[in-house]
Amino acid sequence: MAWGFGVDVGGTTVKIACFDTEGTLHSRWEIPTRTEQGGKQILPDIAGAIQNYMTEQKIPQGEILGIGIGVPGAVENRWVVNRCVNLGWDRLDVREALGRLTGLPVVVGNDATLAALGEWWKGGGQKSDMVLVTLGTGVGGGIVLDGKSLAGTHGAGGEIGHIVVNPDETEPCSCGKRGCAEQYCSATGIVRLAKRHLAGTACPSELKNCKNFTCKDVFDAAARGDIPAIETLEQVYGYLGRLVANVCCVVDPEIVVLGGGVSKAGQPLLEGARQYFETECFHACRETRFALATLGNDAGVYGAFCLLQRECI
Amino acid sequence: MAWGFGVDVGGTTVKIACFDTEGTLHSRWEIPTRTEQGGKQILPDIAGAIQNYMTEQKIPQGEILGIGIGVPGAVENRWVVNRCVNLGWDRLDVREALGRLTGLPVVVGNDATLAALGEWWKGGGQKSDMVLVTLGTGVGGGIVLDGKSLAGTHGAGGEIGHIVVNPDETEPCSCGKRGCAEQYCSATGIVRLAKRHLAGTACPSELKNCKNFTCKDVFDAAARGDIPAIETLEQVYGYLGRLVANVCCVVDPEIVVLGGGVSKAGQPLLEGARQYFETECFHACRETRFALATLGNDAGVYGAFCLLQRECI
Repeated sequence: MAWGFGVDVGGTTVKIACFDTEGTLHSRWEIPTRTEQGGKQILPDIAGAIQNYMTEQKIPQGEILGIGIGVPGAVENRWVVNRCVNLGWDRLDVREALGRLTGLPVVVGNDATLAALGEWWKGGGQKSDMVLVTLGTGVGGGIVLDGKSLAGTHGAGGEIGHIVVNPDETEPCSCGKRGCAEQYCSATGIVRLAKRHLAGTACPSELKNCKNFTCKDVFDAAARGDIPAIETLEQVYGYLGRLVANVCCVVDPEIVVLGGGVSKAGQPLLEGARQYFETECFHACRETRFALATLGNDAGVYGAFCLLQRECI
Repeated sequence: MAWGFGVDVGGTTVKIACFDTEGTLHSRWEIPTRTEQGGKQILPDIAGAIQNYMTEQKIPQGEILGIGIGVPGAVENRWVVNRCVNLGWDRLDVREALGRLTGLPVVVGNDATLAALGEWWKGGGQKSDMVLVTLGTGVGGGIVLDGKSLAGTHGAGGEIGHIVVNPDETEPCSCGKRGCAEQYCSATGIVRLAKRHLAGTACPSELKNCKNFTCKDVFDAAARGDIPAIETLEQVYGYLGRLVANVCCVVDPEIVVLGGGVSKAGQPLLEGARQYFETECFHACRETRFALATLGNDAGVYGAFCLLQRECI
């Protein structure tokens, strides 16, 4: 039996998991992400955690396939990270640096891309060609084609949150453009849309009593029949359906998987998006399947280990 | 030396080319596409043309790698054509049918996808990851990632002409949707936009004297300083730039190649699209290169032979 590690570096915690080469997750833990001093402790912390685990479990170095690691930034040439604002990193050759610290082979990917690979491998999207739409604080995504994750030339493969779905938008997206899908389908985008809609309607809403409501509050209110909340979500589903329809015109996947915090809304989100997708999609794509992500926060470590297996076997 | 054939089936003619396995095109000719009686003569005509060529050139069957063929329709499961309206075909297993007629291995692809593969292989887009935007009567496209053409689950990979770039559009696209890129960036779309613009402006234009002007007339008038023609093309470049920006958010290619009849407009088109692309693209993609297609009508036969080499070696 041989072993390998999947690592998912987030802005506050690093998730680490140990897998056997059959693909079974044996152990999973977290360490804090120390972003101070340009994040220079992050890789040594990861190396230390992995070395400790190997010592405790008495796993010899020779039985370790290596480390797959996902980072929240663009990955160029398959292993060089070009700025991770959240981590304090500038340009960093993660493969070389973590390899030197551990003496192990290292493969590197973008976190959203690896989450897609994880869902493709063990989660909600076990089909040959899949698109993961990650609806979180922002909107990200990952694309898996023929079982291979698509990184893109500039590390921007699957950056579908910045597809323009409303050219008439007046407020800017965090990226500087106007009308990106992220402005409507992310948790913050849904709250923004709800506030805008509430400001323009005389219709009563429980959300009007609540100053700092969340995306979940909008879904909960809609489930209780709150008209402005329902109308807000119809807008969200419309933009999400259009986003997915546009993505399908490019890569035409077998399945579209909705993940991220917003996807906890479950079936209403899935069915709402699907309905608008059908009115906006290219006819050949009408049978595209929709599913919810199933691995939650573990998708990244699964994907990181899956990439490792791909590259090292 | 071994040989192979690249075939590109169009609505009026079938282009056939013979290549050696070094990739040199030795001979290229056309036969009419007989679409009558549900297009049932098309494959026998192709088989006959190839057999005649082999006899004339005294090439034994054993020296032939096979036939790569591009068809104007969705290709499912890599070789079954699911409706080619232009050819009269319903569902047809082209690989099986042409293989039976010739006794040769056959590989099948969508024509736009194979044109992209051709431009990737020998034309304007010789980079690892490339998107071809075909601006013809309609807008099509093809995507090559890591040197492999992307067919899509339902044969709709690269159908980028049906990405919605203007949700406010009131007129329907040929596909039934509204606001598809094809409605603005195809030859017919450009004429449509020009007519709409001329109807709404008091500004003089040479196009107002011409009842049935073409897309080329619009470019020619713009080159002579015709204001409404220039304004029309600014709109076209805006939509084309947005289309390409959206596609780059999905697959993030190294290079975008503009092909099809409209691309004969050359540098003004390339620079116009590039300028609007830069204002609408995701920041990581700003360095994406733009180029013009160079193979013209031969892209399809090059791509068909390239696919054959891939699958048969």
